[in-house]
Amino acid sequence: MCPEAMSTATKLAIENLWEEVRELSLGSTTYQIDHLTSPPTPLQFLRDYISPNKPCLISNSVNHWPALSRWSSTHYLKKTLSSSTVSVHLTPNGRADSLTPHRDNSSSLVFASAHVEKMPFPVALEMVSQSDTCSGKGSNCVAYLQEQNDCFRNEYFDLSQDCDDHIPWASEALGCLPEAVNLWIGNEFSVTSFHKDHYENLYAVISGEKHFVLLPPTDVHRMYIREYPSAQYHYSRDTGDFKLELKEPKRYVPWCSVDPYPSFEEKGRDMSRFPLYYKGPKPFEVTVKAGQVLYLPSMWFHHVSQRPDSRGLTVAVNYWYDMRFDIKYAYFNFLQSIKYSSRSDSPSHQQETLEQQEDDLDVISSVQNGAALEQLNDGEEEQFINRLPHPCDI
Amino acid sequence: MCPEAMSTATKLAIENLWEEVRELSLGSTTYQIDHLTSPPTPLQFLRDYISPNKPCLISNSVNHWPALSRWSSTHYLKKTLSSSTVSVHLTPNGRADSLTPHRDNSSSLVFASAHVEKMPFPVALEMVSQSDTCSGKGSNCVAYLQEQNDCFRNEYFDLSQDCDDHIPWASEALGCLPEAVNLWIGNEFSVTSFHKDHYENLYAVISGEKHFVLLPPTDVHRMYIREYPSAQYHYSRDTGDFKLELKEPKRYVPWCSVDPYPSFEEKGRDMSRFPLYYKGPKPFEVTVKAGQVLYLPSMWFHHVSQRPDSRGLTVAVNYWYDMRFDIKYAYFNFLQSIKYSSRSDSPSHQQETLEQQEDDLDVISSVQNGAALEQLNDGEEEQFINRLPHPCDI
Repeated sequence: MCPEAMSTATKLAIENLWEEVRELSLGSTTYQIDHLTSPPTPLQFLRDYISPNKPCLISNSVNHWPALSRWSSTHYLKKTLSSSTVSVHLTPNGRADSLTPHRDNSSSLVFASAHVEKMPFPVALEMVSQSDTCSGKGSNCVAYLQEQNDCFRNEYFDLSQDCDDHIPWASEALGCLPEAVNLWIGNEFSVTSFHKDHYENLYAVISGEKHFVLLPPTDVHRMYIREYPSAQYHYSRDTGDFKLELKEPKRYVPWCSVDPYPSFEEKGRDMSRFPLYYKGPKPFEVTVKAGQVLYLPSMWFHHVSQRPDSRGLTVAVNYWYDMRFDIKYAYFNFLQSIKYSSRSDSPSHQQETLEQQEDDLDVISSVQNGAALEQLNDGEEEQFINRLPHPCDI
Repeated sequence: MCPEAMSTATKLAIENLWEEVRELSLGSTTYQIDHLTSPPTPLQFLRDYISPNKPCLISNSVNHWPALSRWSSTHYLKKTLSSSTVSVHLTPNGRADSLTPHRDNSSSLVFASAHVEKMPFPVALEMVSQSDTCSGKGSNCVAYLQEQNDCFRNEYFDLSQDCDDHIPWASEALGCLPEAVNLWIGNEFSVTSFHKDHYENLYAVISGEKHFVLLPPTDVHRMYIREYPSAQYHYSRDTGDFKLELKEPKRYVPWCSVDPYPSFEEKGRDMSRFPLYYKGPKPFEVTVKAGQVLYLPSMWFHHVSQRPDSRGLTVAVNYWYDMRFDIKYAYFNFLQSIKYSSRSDSPSHQQETLEQQEDDLDVISSVQNGAALEQLNDGEEEQFINRLPHPCDI
């Protein structure tokens, strides 16, 4: 078999995988996920969703949480957390942990982390409410209360009695308690770019709603994961300005290149740069409303946007459970290590920055060291490298 | 990247997968499987074994079955089944559904099915007892009572009250009852060659013991699955001779080429023909004794040999449960469709029959039709083609 034909066969095999996982398991006629109107039994949840790595939306599972009524009062939140200091993520545009043009070279993208500051909760919440990306109107600063380090049981401890400590049917199914529980308070300006987490995720919306765009791990090549230089916003209270600085020493973060909601101007360029995203099956989409829980399986790529409640806030709590690093994970690493040669797909773009970055990075070479290229959990880019699979005990 | 380097990277990725699934999940320091000394709960079984596609041996799970004591009496078996007609599989060497040289061309292997005859159970059991492969001693005919079509609930119905209808913790975990329950009565002459089944398998030994050599589905390239012409033994009672005839019209069965127990003469040749089998990780091995149950996960390659009880019989019952055709199955099909180019590994063997067969068969081409090459369940080679994944309901 000639090398060209082999390459074509591998491409077809990868594209066939995208279709087959949908036909067999996820559903190929709709882009919606299963919606359960009552919580599943642990066995059902394990058999029908965790084991096949399949997302679902669950209603009527957290109706008893006091948070659902109490947290609609901003006064209650401020009073309960009056003496708490919390971490606020600040960006000029609501896009923390996302790809942004670097000021020195607008055609070169960097992975931009938020400016993080600790402040009293009442002040922090005020900053979220005053967030605005339109500098004409004033602040040009978007605040997002989130810290994916188990913050709900630490910084927000005084609120934690308003939700269950864990999701009982999920804990029983997974055989362990959550590794981390995180609180998210933001508004429509904050968007989380495509990424995946090495956790089983139970995501409960308390107020407002969250919209998820989802792709299964089989579709990894469609995300165009590339390494980007790591940068961080620095915010000056005096000037109200952000500066985006490359981290020193220079280091790279592997991140998804695709934005599912490009601007009108970007879309044409993106369609030719990311043909696998645009020509493959449509992503799954789900809107999680207040009182609903999303099961977001480990290793699924997800992009999250939000719509606020009448106060202008979106509030959610998510439970991260340890995933099992089993045959599915080994298969994923194998798939990811197979290079889908995009060069021959879009020869006209060989000169683009993205393609040049591909030249610099030999994705396959990492396999030769026995370690597949890892994409990192958001907010965990430094720690994750050292995270080893570990057993999950209740 | 040059085509040669790409091919090397793919090979390394496949070899890395073999190692990684062992390091993460199956165990890499021992070639034994988990041994549970009591039956697992349905949740444990689903979480720790079915979901990660990991085998285990379970003791003290079927101690209450009357079969364990009753079936040690040959008199009881003959009396209970005195009026039953059963299917007997006859071969000259105990190797049904296995690769055998064809009489017209000893260097060309065919897939040989047994001669199957129906006869009264007492006569059939007598044939098993008199089985012998040494023609000098007499019969040169090995009989094996087995028919993988739910025979325990049909031909052997009168024995079926001696075992449970199903394995309760497995049925609850899988959410369904067995699709088929099969009885196996044979002796040390009968060997089942490497193959895989599209079922979750609970395999209970009643008398004697069975020895399994196991490879996970990730190791599919190490099995050298090739298509072989289908042939069938025809036995003449008059002459006591077997004739092996190619089936008409000619058709091919994909089957594993590797024999884990080659003769001394064959071993050197096999090591150079099947380098991936010999250079990869050692297979898992387990001996299942009377009263024990093996969980043999779907899609695992298994080779089975047996040691008889004091009467000269090995008796077992296995429960086939529908497997879920989910992301693991899609990943498997993807993996199998990636051609591991063995040509460059062993250029000196390009002229061998096996390699010539590879030239004839473009394994990759089947992917282009959206259908990965399937290996068949034993005894199901004709039916399986039409077996579609279907939901599993209790």
